[in-house]
Amino acid sequence: MASPLNNTTTSDQEMADLERHDCVERVQWVLNTPKPPGLSQELIGTAVSWRNKVPFLNMQSGLKHELFSMLKATFPILSWCQKYKPNQFKRDLLAGLTLASLCIPQSIGYATLAKLDPQYGLYTSVVPPLIYTLMGTSREIAIGPVAVISLLLSSMVQKLEDPMANPIAYHKLVLTVTFFAGTFQAAFGLFRSGFLIDFLSHAAIVGFMAGAAIVIGLQQLKGLLGITHFTNKTDVISVLKVVWSSFQHPWNPYNFLLGCSFLIFILITRFLGRKNKKLFWLPAIAPLVSVVLATLIVFLTKADKHGVNIVKHIKGGLNPSSVDQLQFNGPHVGELAKIGLIVAIIALTEAIAVGRSFAAIKGYHLDGNKEMVAMGFMNIIGSFTTCYVATGSFSRTAVNFSAGCETAMSNIVMAVTVFISLELLTKLLYYTPVAILASIILSALPGLIDVNEACNIWKVDKLDFLACIGAFLGVLFATVEIGLLVAVTISFAKIIVVSIRPGTETLGKLPETDAFGDVNQYPMAVKTPGVLIMRLKSALLCFANANFVRERIMKWVIEEEKDSKLRNAEKTIQIVILDISNLMDIDTSGIASLEELHKNFDSNGMKLAIANPRWQVIHKLKLANFVPKIGGRVFLSIGEAMASFSV
Amino acid sequence: MASPLNNTTTSDQEMADLERHDCVERVQWVLNTPKPPGLSQELIGTAVSWRNKVPFLNMQSGLKHELFSMLKATFPILSWCQKYKPNQFKRDLLAGLTLASLCIPQSIGYATLAKLDPQYGLYTSVVPPLIYTLMGTSREIAIGPVAVISLLLSSMVQKLEDPMANPIAYHKLVLTVTFFAGTFQAAFGLFRSGFLIDFLSHAAIVGFMAGAAIVIGLQQLKGLLGITHFTNKTDVISVLKVVWSSFQHPWNPYNFLLGCSFLIFILITRFLGRKNKKLFWLPAIAPLVSVVLATLIVFLTKADKHGVNIVKHIKGGLNPSSVDQLQFNGPHVGELAKIGLIVAIIALTEAIAVGRSFAAIKGYHLDGNKEMVAMGFMNIIGSFTTCYVATGSFSRTAVNFSAGCETAMSNIVMAVTVFISLELLTKLLYYTPVAILASIILSALPGLIDVNEACNIWKVDKLDFLACIGAFLGVLFATVEIGLLVAVTISFAKIIVVSIRPGTETLGKLPETDAFGDVNQYPMAVKTPGVLIMRLKSALLCFANANFVRERIMKWVIEEEKDSKLRNAEKTIQIVILDISNLMDIDTSGIASLEELHKNFDSNGMKLAIANPRWQVIHKLKLANFVPKIGGRVFLSIGEAMASFSV
Repeated sequence: MASPLNNTTTSDQEMADLERHDCVERVQWVLNTPKPPGLSQELIGTAVSWRNKVPFLNMQSGLKHELFSMLKATFPILSWCQKYKPNQFKRDLLAGLTLASLCIPQSIGYATLAKLDPQYGLYTSVVPPLIYTLMGTSREIAIGPVAVISLLLSSMVQKLEDPMANPIAYHKLVLTVTFFAGTFQAAFGLFRSGFLIDFLSHAAIVGFMAGAAIVIGLQQLKGLLGITHFTNKTDVISVLKVVWSSFQHPWNPYNFLLGCSFLIFILITRFLGRKNKKLFWLPAIAPLVSVVLATLIVFLTKADKHGVNIVKHIKGGLNPSSVDQLQFNGPHVGELAKIGLIVAIIALTEAIAVGRSFAAIKGYHLDGNKEMVAMGFMNIIGSFTTCYVATGSFSRTAVNFSAGCETAMSNIVMAVTVFISLELLTKLLYYTPVAILASIILSALPGLIDVNEACNIWKVDKLDFLACIGAFLGVLFATVEIGLLVAVTISFAKIIVVSIRPGTETLGKLPETDAFGDVNQYPMAVKTPGVLIMRLKSALLCFANANFVRERIMKWVIEEEKDSKLRNAEKTIQIVILDISNLMDIDTSGIASLEELHKNFDSNGMKLAIANPRWQVIHKLKLANFVPKIGGRVFLSIGEAMASFSV
Repeated sequence: MASPLNNTTTSDQEMADLERHDCVERVQWVLNTPKPPGLSQELIGTAVSWRNKVPFLNMQSGLKHELFSMLKATFPILSWCQKYKPNQFKRDLLAGLTLASLCIPQSIGYATLAKLDPQYGLYTSVVPPLIYTLMGTSREIAIGPVAVISLLLSSMVQKLEDPMANPIAYHKLVLTVTFFAGTFQAAFGLFRSGFLIDFLSHAAIVGFMAGAAIVIGLQQLKGLLGITHFTNKTDVISVLKVVWSSFQHPWNPYNFLLGCSFLIFILITRFLGRKNKKLFWLPAIAPLVSVVLATLIVFLTKADKHGVNIVKHIKGGLNPSSVDQLQFNGPHVGELAKIGLIVAIIALTEAIAVGRSFAAIKGYHLDGNKEMVAMGFMNIIGSFTTCYVATGSFSRTAVNFSAGCETAMSNIVMAVTVFISLELLTKLLYYTPVAILASIILSALPGLIDVNEACNIWKVDKLDFLACIGAFLGVLFATVEIGLLVAVTISFAKIIVVSIRPGTETLGKLPETDAFGDVNQYPMAVKTPGVLIMRLKSALLCFANANFVRERIMKWVIEEEKDSKLRNAEKTIQIVILDISNLMDIDTSGIASLEELHKNFDSNGMKLAIANPRWQVIHKLKLANFVPKIGGRVFLSIGEAMASFSV
């Protein structure tokens, strides 16, 4: 290793020699690393087998035991129900009943939002929760129909079939979408491709949910104002036009009065519930109480004769089979599969976000892939039993948690309760006013609009906020799909920009340490005259950024030289140390750009040194024969590089 | 800072206190960094103004001087022709004449490949080189028609218009494409969006060029075998079918004999030229000699009467104006713009690759954006003067370099020589056999197939090789566009996979240093009992990978715990230090996943510490109020974190 700047000041020459010997030995560490795993091995490593994913699976022999372990891995209920205690059941029973009292009115409301008959919502609160309890790993999640999915379904499927003109054909399409959604969800889980749900950033979801909440709220104006000719479009402008024109005609104030008064009642109970944590049951049962009271009022006052719209007949009884209603041939199959995919992703995103946030509170881990399989099967079986897409509801999960649920048993209690209501109580709902359903849906919406989080996002990351507001405005003023598309595009644009336009930074030594830091981040960092230390702000040096990086480094070096000339510094730059500790991988274009940099520096009398190459990178540099080309100037760290030049 | 593992063994307590005080001070460095530049500032910083890009532009006042500087920046010829010496001209003259002798036969051949009349190739060797000389910065590049662009043009434009049935309309479309290509190129340069040409990775270009060379070679079978009914398709299978069926009919062997014998002659001269560097002019003039000899043979033997296809009439004279032939309305405009874009990118990719490799040899810097502007204007003006798309030819640039060219003056010499030939010599080319043009094109193809580089790519990066072979097979068996699409898709898939599926690694202390390294890369690295140090292999922690990273870290910690239990180690993991020095940016999802990790660790009795956060990251962590949430355990380096826990 030549020392180009002969200014060694060590008094003890031997000491320096010894140090240099050590340094040479450490360079050998860098150069003689074992062969890193290939791409194929890394990919296989990522796709760990199903078996390995059961963390505490005993490795004891015995096929029977093995089989039972497999069963337990597929049906987690087998694990926890063995240890299930009566005391736990007491709490789950209470939570389940509370859940049911909230679930029944919400299910009916969401079914009308999905433009289906009310019983479909109740069906969806029976079979899917039972299947989920068998296969899912979350203990708190409350399964059933939710507002956003209901809106998504109706807004997309009604483009193919008019739910008013042809309700039977519309139902069939919805069931087929449910089947597709379930199949996609199960496939994501089985093929461990859950990363698809990661494509929606947190910010995008916040914006999307808020937009969807407002759209859903506007849809409720139909029930609340008793408008007969509503629009099929979901954007704000179309809906407000319809509402405006409905005011031109004579309208019936009873619907509005009834809806608003109960909405205020529900909101007051919620306020009380928040003030006093012990009254958590009050907002939970308020919707059911409202339904009962409103139904009684209508029944007693015969308000339905005076223009109050009522639910009328709800078909009771057990979920009927709907296997023969699925439509796999016909003109819309491709379109239905596409809707299924979108709904599958949104449903999973919501459910897993809900499940994870409560799992984190209780400190246990939720296996994303297993959750997806459970959600997938519950929707596939749901589509066979006249259910539409179910997922984890945020509002009901929160109620379940507050009610002190211990296990997924509360979902079973809820499903059984809903089932009993379907058998016995549907006739009692004949006189339930439609406006009360609208107010129940409206009361659940504020939970979907998270203004605090939006402010946080604005504070932390402006581009993230752009994705958030893009999703929000897209949903509001265009369609739900466009909102999603805008959000995904903005989110991914950032990843690509960061990858193809990485920055570089100049490093200086931090006083009293051996560390080097960005001179802008650490103003106390000291540059060494004659040496320029640079670091790349990228994980990849590849075709897409190699030329950019090379030009940027060249420009920087030229500017530094000009600077040092202006400052009449005694030394011009003689050594450029490139810290590539950030680089995870390099390709042939990247190596070529490093070679070109070396040639350019060389012809200008500068030396290029490489510090801290990572495993894959040093391996590829060795394969490309790059190390001898730059005179072996590859070092373990910046410090070692500096030492070898005796600066 | 609490010390959870009370095993301090320092004899001198004071010393330790002092050190801890320093450590606390250094933590303040991390926490009190100045505000980093926002995204908008970074983007503006990237788009440096045109003026700043002229590196050695004097900042002296005076509008006149300023104006001259601007002119010089736009027309670099003004800079170098002031210092131009007679001695340099002697060398440029020689290089230019050598270049012209190779350029004339190649231009005619490439024009036929582009399905244009021969004179179009010659026109393209007159105007574009002159314009480039005024505006370009490369000293060696030889401008003119090239094989790949000629193939691309004919394969794409003939889908819109049949060059046999309607040659005039076809010419018009080609000229319009040339105009669009030039406009796109100039726009890329002016708007500094040259990154578009980076989208083709080096590996993809190697594969694409090799595939294109074979396709071009197969197209030459038409001339070599004298086939009259050839296919318009470019894929191997279609061409071989036509060739096979042509063998069924009686065919004329003279074309083949003539072509092959001169091909062998040219290849022998090339071999001699390679053996003896002084004979570089032999392969350079061999094509012209072949043309002259073959024309003479045909003229003397009247072989054209015996079935040898000849070029016949070539229109001579100066480039005619073609401004009125450009077609900006009509059904094909959109399609033509698309073809123009593809051709623009491929032409720039080739020219800049050629220019850069020779600039690196001579040790000067080529400004990519300025090159693009020069190429753009030369093609725009070319499209006004009956030229088709010109770019830098690899084979001719190599000849220019070997002939010892000093400046772009050799291009002027060449252009003038070609112009004189157009004026005086076109009549002499009447009897030139078509087969000889085919053999000249064939002789240039081996230079496009770089088997060594393909082997190198295979050795260095398997995924890169996949892009290479994908482009190769795509061009060979489908179309040129599909080959390009395959290559771009594979190349980008890698960037996205690396971004959304980053790995993590466990670090250990490297003996006798303060550095920490991946325990797999450096087997000598030592882990500290009770502490797990992990590092992220990604530059971004964002929505697309936050959950994945969180799950991966959790899994790793669980496995480490199991391991330490199996080994009956005295200490289970109590501290997890996450080195995030690789992270350039983080978004709200990323911060949320770190928070969840902290909660999970906390409920399992482990402590999470963050080491070495970068500028943007620490800024956002502070904004999101993350630092107090993890108890302020943010450190300058892993070493400081370890020290603060006194381990």
